[in-house]
Amino acid sequence: MTSYRELQVNGDRLNNTLQTTCSSWGALAGSATGMRRLALSQEDKEVRDWLVELCTALGCDMKVDQMGNIFATRPGTSKDKKPIGMGSHLDTQPAGGRYDGILGVLGGLEVLQTLHENDIQTHCPISLIDWTNEEGARFPGAMMCSGVWSTKSTTGLEACYAVKDTDGVSMQEALEAIGYLGDTPCDYRENGLESYFELHIEQGPKLEAAGNKVGVVTAVQAMKWYAVRVSGVEGHSGTTPMESRSDALVTASKLIAAVSDTARYTGLGVATVGVISNDTQSQATIPSGVSFIIDVRCSTDTMVADLSSAIFKKFDEIVQQENNSTSYHVIRNWGLPESTFHADCIEAVRSAAVNEVGESKIMDMKSGAGHDAAWASKVVKASMIFVPSKDGISHNPAEYTSPADCYLGAQVLLQAVLRYDEVVSRRT
Amino acid sequence: MTSYRELQVNGDRLNNTLQTTCSSWGALAGSATGMRRLALSQEDKEVRDWLVELCTALGCDMKVDQMGNIFATRPGTSKDKKPIGMGSHLDTQPAGGRYDGILGVLGGLEVLQTLHENDIQTHCPISLIDWTNEEGARFPGAMMCSGVWSTKSTTGLEACYAVKDTDGVSMQEALEAIGYLGDTPCDYRENGLESYFELHIEQGPKLEAAGNKVGVVTAVQAMKWYAVRVSGVEGHSGTTPMESRSDALVTASKLIAAVSDTARYTGLGVATVGVISNDTQSQATIPSGVSFIIDVRCSTDTMVADLSSAIFKKFDEIVQQENNSTSYHVIRNWGLPESTFHADCIEAVRSAAVNEVGESKIMDMKSGAGHDAAWASKVVKASMIFVPSKDGISHNPAEYTSPADCYLGAQVLLQAVLRYDEVVSRRT
Repeated sequence: MTSYRELQVNGDRLNNTLQTTCSSWGALAGSATGMRRLALSQEDKEVRDWLVELCTALGCDMKVDQMGNIFATRPGTSKDKKPIGMGSHLDTQPAGGRYDGILGVLGGLEVLQTLHENDIQTHCPISLIDWTNEEGARFPGAMMCSGVWSTKSTTGLEACYAVKDTDGVSMQEALEAIGYLGDTPCDYRENGLESYFELHIEQGPKLEAAGNKVGVVTAVQAMKWYAVRVSGVEGHSGTTPMESRSDALVTASKLIAAVSDTARYTGLGVATVGVISNDTQSQATIPSGVSFIIDVRCSTDTMVADLSSAIFKKFDEIVQQENNSTSYHVIRNWGLPESTFHADCIEAVRSAAVNEVGESKIMDMKSGAGHDAAWASKVVKASMIFVPSKDGISHNPAEYTSPADCYLGAQVLLQAVLRYDEVVSRRT
Repeated sequence: MTSYRELQVNGDRLNNTLQTTCSSWGALAGSATGMRRLALSQEDKEVRDWLVELCTALGCDMKVDQMGNIFATRPGTSKDKKPIGMGSHLDTQPAGGRYDGILGVLGGLEVLQTLHENDIQTHCPISLIDWTNEEGARFPGAMMCSGVWSTKSTTGLEACYAVKDTDGVSMQEALEAIGYLGDTPCDYRENGLESYFELHIEQGPKLEAAGNKVGVVTAVQAMKWYAVRVSGVEGHSGTTPMESRSDALVTASKLIAAVSDTARYTGLGVATVGVISNDTQSQATIPSGVSFIIDVRCSTDTMVADLSSAIFKKFDEIVQQENNSTSYHVIRNWGLPESTFHADCIEAVRSAAVNEVGESKIMDMKSGAGHDAAWASKVVKASMIFVPSKDGISHNPAEYTSPADCYLGAQVLLQAVLRYDEVVSRRT
């Protein structure tokens, strides 16, 4: 039997799988490498079907839970241990790239294939997980289904089922439509893990800037979203004097500018308005209603609360100053509390990474982006592996991580999982 | 034969026609009186078909021109005179009311019916005109097809054919699809009028506030639209520091606020951003591109130019201050120069209105909204008749003009046309 330490994932196969599945299911029209694989779309269904078929052929036990999360579990020698999880998501942004999420799932698949072809018997079962709707791009609410599984999200199963896309299709209807409304409970207490490892691209410029190859992720910053609605009164743009207007878009514009200015001014973190929608569709009409979502992220929950307060204090001042009968309301808020990863998992990732590239090419990092691992870490030991993103670009068709870095990430994932399994095995 | 002066339109029939056709074709879902009858939609086709059938039955000669403008002409006794035109438009805003445009066409139809059933022989032929895409809500470019007919618009026939709706359907395709791509030249030199009268709701509060019943419209204010594109760079909202961002929506928000602030500050006129669209559809992505349209209206062309200059000067300052590598470009501009109506037509409207309600209940007005009559007035003698809008509300489902005021408007239209015809007849 091959020694665990000598095992290597197949980088060519991983790159080939990644490029061909991206070309086949969800390639963004008019772009060589862009992706548009929205959660629970036809493209998402097809890549899921492919994954299920392949994992079944590898001898995995397949489960689909109530939120469509897929668990492909390769048995271990222990009969009573929960699986060590590896995973990420196969859905993408509306105009995203080939690596965000996808590398984590296909890297995990490559680990399963390597274990299979080398006939490795692990102590714990090993699960590959595809989490549903991580991006929250089609159904608002990022990391939605790992959030339900952890039971720590304030948005539970029924509330998530009811969330609708812009065409009015609910999450539950979409799950049914593509055949991924499973019956395994979406709850870590009933479908649990021993630990969870997630390989992901950095989505920022730090590894590249430092000339490093692997990020050992120790935490994920806190984040919160606010869906805001600004209300005014419709009117004719030619006949309504400036002083008689209640223009929702003018007020919304001042609020959106304040979101950015307040984040810059306080230095507490980052704040962004990524989506805006205006009820009015006519150039000759004064807008009566505008909706937008604020995304606030800071190192700690307290800093998120402080930055949010500063933003809404400024909102109140602006609405008062405008004095044009417009008003704003936060109609929904949701978020991800700060996450600190577990020393056992961090250590498994660090020692695997040091072994591959040496101490000088790795660095500890805090994630600026949210990940399914953040929710998982609320209920099981977890950590993450980051590999470099070219120019720090992500959520963009130009997103790129070299085949060598993808190989390295999957290799560190394999070795971290095996090291962790060894520790559990010794503990027994 | 009934004397011209005694002729009366049938107010009950007019109100019945207006309410039933609005209920049948284009009623806005979820609203008792709202309308959504977009230009060249199925609803627009159906109301056009109804109009053509009815006018044909009244003995009118029917023409559809190259932009789908419908001319229904009742012959006069003179063989060489061009028709006196009456008309407006049957398309509406996406969430408009039952009176804007519709009253002008159905009021003109009521005039034709009154002439027909009283067997009146006019000297000039009388044409009822339904102008295509006045609102510019589906195909951007308000008063588009009267603009082509006048040949004074900078947007000509071929350019208008190429304009697309948000689904990518071109104006030419839409005209073909509903069977209204006619072969009559859309050119006043080949399909001309002797003069043009347009009945319309005021769309503002002045008549009601003054307790008056009829506005004698002497001019239409100048207006100009600018399609603006703001460009930035997409990025991840969690991993991109505030100081490294090139956020197109932040810049666009500051520009939109400046449009309103500059109009208020200069006092030159009104300026509005009615539509905005953001390329990004993800709450976790820094927006890379935003488009919006600025609507500027003032009493004179010079004031429009001055207000526009002040707005764009402010834009340049903002982009420089932001210093975040975002930029803006005006990708298209179009407009309607100031229009002064003709004394002969104004006089016909005034004397008809005085005869109906007396000197004390009429007032001279300048229109704040654009109308097909503004383009028509560039090439033929023209004027307009305004009737009160309840609370000044328009471009809104709550738009309302009482049946009595609708009757009055159509009655003044009938008498103005007959008076004008009498003048032409005497001149011969």
